[in-house]
Amino acid sequence: MTEHTLRPVGRVESTLTDRTAAPRQPDEGAPDAWLVFDDRYAPALDGLTPGTDVLLLTWLDRADRDTLAVHPRGDAARPLTGVFATRAPDRPNPIGLHTVHILAVEGRRVHVRNLEALDATPILDVKPLLTPDR
Amino acid sequence: MTEHTLRPVGRVESTLTDRTAAPRQPDEGAPDAWLVFDDRYAPALDGLTPGTDVLLLTWLDRADRDTLAVHPRGDAARPLTGVFATRAPDRPNPIGLHTVHILAVEGRRVHVRNLEALDATPILDVKPLLTPDR
Repeated sequence: MTEHTLRPVGRVESTLTDRTAAPRQPDEGAPDAWLVFDDRYAPALDGLTPGTDVLLLTWLDRADRDTLAVHPRGDAARPLTGVFATRAPDRPNPIGLHTVHILAVEGRRVHVRNLEALDATPILDVKPLLTPDR
Repeated sequence: MTEHTLRPVGRVESTLTDRTAAPRQPDEGAPDAWLVFDDRYAPALDGLTPGTDVLLLTWLDRADRDTLAVHPRGDAARPLTGVFATRAPDRPNPIGLHTVHILAVEGRRVHVRNLEALDATPILDVKPLLTPDR
């Protein structure tokens, strides 16, 4: 099948640098972080509002793309499960999906609460949570 | 910034073929559709369960990637808004995000309810809705 090319629009700035120490979910101790967008994408940020929640899509560039089944949460006692039935980062197209709360927007830098992505993780997209008028 | 390569894992089979006629949201008349996965990814489907809702990620291959701001829902009366504050398909990395209800799993074919993606849209990933134990 035809391949497609992702062009990251920015990067995560975070104190998280070690995958083995990273929380699996944001409510498991993830720090606040900055989303730093490339200058050229500044117009795409217009309308992002502090105090709101948004969906952040990232590229989990340290994931293993050949993994098709895992023990959920790395627990060998749990049966092997297809990666499409888990949130494991190792998967054919390792796109990270994070709901984040916007604390501040400063030009092309966006401060968000509790993000479990590692420092330097490429940002692919931001989307509002779905509301009927968007 | 470094580019990354997406490898589609399957395709949507749908009666929707015309972008201009496609519903903007699944509750606006989207038909049931089939997700048809490539043979090699069959192990990744193990654990998908009829009757559950999952997140489907697609590549909106007919989108315009140079669009950075839009009038929401194509309504010129609404102010231009950065694409990261809208769900417009035209955006730098046009990843579609759909919550779908699984009607049936037949080998590497998954039948889902109310999908607004066009026929032949590449499938990137499937993820469970987040629950604490996944």
